[in-house]
Amino acid sequence: MTSQTSSLTCPLQGIIPPLVTPMRDRDTLDVEGLQRLIEHVLAGGVHGLFILGTTGEAPSLSYRVRRELIERVCHEVKDRVPVLVGITDTAFTESVHLAQHAARVGAQAVVLAAPYYFPAGQPELEEYVQHLLPELPLPLFLYNMPALTKVAFGLDTIEHLMQHDKIIGLKDSSANMVYFKDVIHLMHQRKDWTLLMGPEELLAESIWAGGHGGVSGGANIWPSLFVDIFNAAKCDDREALARLQEKAFVLKKLYQIGRHPSSLIKGIKCALSLLNLCSDFIAEPFHHFREPERQKVKKVLEETGLL
Amino acid sequence: MTSQTSSLTCPLQGIIPPLVTPMRDRDTLDVEGLQRLIEHVLAGGVHGLFILGTTGEAPSLSYRVRRELIERVCHEVKDRVPVLVGITDTAFTESVHLAQHAARVGAQAVVLAAPYYFPAGQPELEEYVQHLLPELPLPLFLYNMPALTKVAFGLDTIEHLMQHDKIIGLKDSSANMVYFKDVIHLMHQRKDWTLLMGPEELLAESIWAGGHGGVSGGANIWPSLFVDIFNAAKCDDREALARLQEKAFVLKKLYQIGRHPSSLIKGIKCALSLLNLCSDFIAEPFHHFREPERQKVKKVLEETGLL
Amino acid sequence: MTSQTSSLTCPLQGIIPPLVTPMRDRDTLDVEGLQRLIEHVLAGGVHGLFILGTTGEAPSLSYRVRRELIERVCHEVKDRVPVLVGITDTAFTESVHLAQHAARVGAQAVVLAAPYYFPAGQPELEEYVQHLLPELPLPLFLYNMPALTKVAFGLDTIEHLMQHDKIIGLKDSSANMVYFKDVIHLMHQRKDWTLLMGPEELLAESIWAGGHGGVSGGANIWPSLFVDIFNAAKCDDREALARLQEKAFVLKKLYQIGRHPSSLIKGIKCALSLLNLCSDFIAEPFHHFREPERQKVKKVLEETGLL
Amino acid sequence: MTSQTSSLTCPLQGIIPPLVTPMRDRDTLDVEGLQRLIEHVLAGGVHGLFILGTTGEAPSLSYRVRRELIERVCHEVKDRVPVLVGITDTAFTESVHLAQHAARVGAQAVVLAAPYYFPAGQPELEEYVQHLLPELPLPLFLYNMPALTKVAFGLDTIEHLMQHDKIIGLKDSSANMVYFKDVIHLMHQRKDWTLLMGPEELLAESIWAGGHGGVSGGANIWPSLFVDIFNAAKCDDREALARLQEKAFVLKKLYQIGRHPSSLIKGIKCALSLLNLCSDFIAEPFHHFREPERQKVKKVLEETGLL
Repeated sequence: MTSQTSSLTCPLQGIIPPLVTPMRDRDTLDVEGLQRLIEHVLAGGVHGLFILGTTGEAPSLSYRVRRELIERVCHEVKDRVPVLVGITDTAFTESVHLAQHAARVGAQAVVLAAPYYFPAGQPELEEYVQHLLPELPLPLFLYNMPALTKVAFGLDTIEHLMQHDKIIGLKDSSANMVYFKDVIHLMHQRKDWTLLMGPEELLAESIWAGGHGGVSGGANIWPSLFVDIFNAAKCDDREALARLQEKAFVLKKLYQIGRHPSSLIKGIKCALSLLNLCSDFIAEPFHHFREPERQKVKKVLEETGLL
Repeated sequence: MTSQTSSLTCPLQGIIPPLVTPMRDRDTLDVEGLQRLIEHVLAGGVHGLFILGTTGEAPSLSYRVRRELIERVCHEVKDRVPVLVGITDTAFTESVHLAQHAARVGAQAVVLAAPYYFPAGQPELEEYVQHLLPELPLPLFLYNMPALTKVAFGLDTIEHLMQHDKIIGLKDSSANMVYFKDVIHLMHQRKDWTLLMGPEELLAESIWAGGHGGVSGGANIWPSLFVDIFNAAKCDDREALARLQEKAFVLKKLYQIGRHPSSLIKGIKCALSLLNLCSDFIAEPFHHFREPERQKVKKVLEETGLL
Repeated sequence: MTSQTSSLTCPLQGIIPPLVTPMRDRDTLDVEGLQRLIEHVLAGGVHGLFILGTTGEAPSLSYRVRRELIERVCHEVKDRVPVLVGITDTAFTESVHLAQHAARVGAQAVVLAAPYYFPAGQPELEEYVQHLLPELPLPLFLYNMPALTKVAFGLDTIEHLMQHDKIIGLKDSSANMVYFKDVIHLMHQRKDWTLLMGPEELLAESIWAGGHGGVSGGANIWPSLFVDIFNAAKCDDREALARLQEKAFVLKKLYQIGRHPSSLIKGIKCALSLLNLCSDFIAEPFHHFREPERQKVKKVLEETGLL
Repeated sequence: MTSQTSSLTCPLQGIIPPLVTPMRDRDTLDVEGLQRLIEHVLAGGVHGLFILGTTGEAPSLSYRVRRELIERVCHEVKDRVPVLVGITDTAFTESVHLAQHAARVGAQAVVLAAPYYFPAGQPELEEYVQHLLPELPLPLFLYNMPALTKVAFGLDTIEHLMQHDKIIGLKDSSANMVYFKDVIHLMHQRKDWTLLMGPEELLAESIWAGGHGGVSGGANIWPSLFVDIFNAAKCDDREALARLQEKAFVLKKLYQIGRHPSSLIKGIKCALSLLNLCSDFIAEPFHHFREPERQKVKKVLEETGLL
């Protein structure tokens, strides 16, 4: 029975790709691309999907598109894996609306980073989440993304928010392993909490430190590679891991093409387009790689053997 | 005929308060408060209104509230002064929707800061604005607010965007007078351009440097003071100016109550509430001043003579 | 009698160029260049000299060179104008040594920015200065330079330190006019205090706000221009000022040649070399402009009429 | 023959404490404390000493004290382990002087972070190091400390500088494991290079990633703990490691006492004083912990069992 499969086990373990949002143009989903992409990552063995995160370009999408995406993904996934939905917003009410929509169409959890226009102080951030909790129809993952939100979830804030059963974990994209390990220590009081690592380069280290998995952007392109890294790290197979991480290191060159901080999303979408999975359209303020960069992406994909 | 009064003269001169958004609760406008506030600032002689800016807490408001606010303000102002509407957003399409709504209900111009989740490079920012222009039914002011958007409009970007007739000015909230004066130099090619100063402390200096007016937060509370400062600076009446700026310096103490960067909005809304103009509710992630801070605000207002 | 001329009048008024340090090579002063430069700026009518500041590359110079420079400048100036000596250092004791040397060879005051490796908290910074005061044989100017020291002198810290008679003023290089005007307000308690503006673009504004003069880098090249701007601002001659500032705006193009933040020093030294005043050698980690940039500097100097 | 013992094996492996500098007062070494501290850490089995780093408060010490420290440490260590000497400075020439002194008195290598007043661009930083190399009588470790120097050694810069045989390794205090692993990849071309981890929390992870050891501040207090962690990580004894890291986690509470970024040095020196190893005097701009904080440090030491 699929609903058993889909029920969110806690802690949530494994690879949960931060799905890119395939677009035809600025306000139209690439529906076929989205279906192909979902089947691609599920076939790779991923353990969940995180949509409308940073890699999913959520803040750049209209609310109409965000709602459509949530609905289509939940419908396509059909409870094969849990779907986590980003509801981060600067407007409290819009976060609530997205969460309600996510619950309605069958998502399993929502994910919230700090509101990102006004920088909240830590007590304000804590209160913000506390006010939001009763309005949310789904369990909540926190999302630490200080580089883009300007505000980190401080350790004291995490400790306080951990008292709320409805908050079931944290995705940490700070790339700060000291912080990550400090959160691990706090988790002694919540054995059911999930801690997920953002940067894919630190996946193995995060597992060894006591983390539960990775929200690895590269898993959009090569899901099985990150599933294999996760498994090798879990059973501490160092030899396999060395081989796998070497492949991930090649893949990573994708993100170093182009000059702007948006290169990560551009690189992933360009690769997915070269693999005939989906369109490489990117929402403003960015645009897809032009031909010179596309040729470099192609070369990297050839080096990985994916192309 | 009112439409003559309302037609946007270029450059736009004077005091254009960044109107706070009076709220009853998280998702309900304080409609009576809004009306009183509008009449209050118009009675003070201001030359325009800027709604849905930073002081207006735009990013924290639901789209429904933003649309309602635009409509109510335009209806209440009835073309007595131009209404400028903030359309800054991380989602291109939502900016367009707000601009279309603003045009429909009678606003005179829209105002756009850089999208504020993903930091755009300068060429990306320029392209962003260029793509937006054909979609906008109203003339556009740029809005430089690097402290909150992470991205400044570089001088080269300003110079390039100045080529577009639809862009009619810039509100600069960087507090960087060197930048402000550099923009003044660029304006030799666009005699109709408007340059407005954000920080009210620099209003007089901005006029002397060649600027056209101020988007002064304190004008919500004491509109005539800033109109007087504007006039004294225009006719270079140093004596009057010294007297007026001393008053503004007292008023400014409001913004130094409280510890968080949100103190400015909290201080203004608390003062407006003490003056019985509107509610002091503030949208998440902030909250209004509690009693100890409220007493301090009261004291400042008494010192100014407003209370 | 020269000693009358040299005695430091308080507040100190006028243009006090932050003298560049002419070098033959990494550890050798360009002695003739230094003499020519000093006579050049004195002939331009400047009211004092500030050596071993940021423009003087103090942190990049060996202590031997710093001591030699202090001695040579004091000897060359022969009390015609006051000499202010930068003693900023990360090591308390080295600041004291420099101050003692400065007093010994006839300087009039010393200048201190925050220690710049470990970022001190405000109470630590205040205590630092308080501990230093009894060790200093000369009056002290504070030097606010947060962009390079990471630490600003907060307004509370300034207010507390103002209680010490030995501290006689502040050079503010923050380019933040709001802060500058806030300091002006604090000075009501110390009528003898001197407030000097760093960025030359804000010289006139700083005078109007109540400041006493400018530590204008461009005065190395064109001292009389900044003296004229100072005078025009003092007597509020707007017409003259507009003409003079236009010239300063041309000169400023010098600082925009080159890509690194060191362009200001490179531009000034290159110009001085083209004017046959001194060598353009720059201490590591920088190097002088190469031929392409030198040609651009030449063009700017020709545009100003200096060449 | 001691010179055999002392000869620097490459890569250098193990725990190299960043020795604090015991001081009687602002300009006087605590000579007995220094001797006790050295014997304490050597007895704990450390594999080298790094003096005049950040934890050693180098930038806050007079050059006289720095020279005396180098001499005393080399004399006391008597080639039992290699001594690495920090020569980071804003003045090129002073770095050279320190390196020459270090060679003269028997140190094995010098350590250089980016000059920290003027932020150098990457090409400037690279050139800086290249100019320095011929002047250095000892092999050089680079030291990546962007939080305090404002400038990181970029990966391209590392790759270029790796071509120089005299540069033998890098101490990375960025706490950025992604960067650390990227440097590991570059090291395929220099099998003799040493990569050392700064933050002690990431010691085990750094070993697993291919690093060679740690410059662990806590090893001043409890050297054998970090030697044990190093060994457990090397032979991948997870059980022992978990037990040891729990102890390190307790010790770490020392650094969280106090509000300022200087808490780390204050905590270590206070602990060393409570253990009767050396004075807790700290050079300006900081000061030692007062009684309330001292009591907290005592409690942590009791919890660790060290007291």
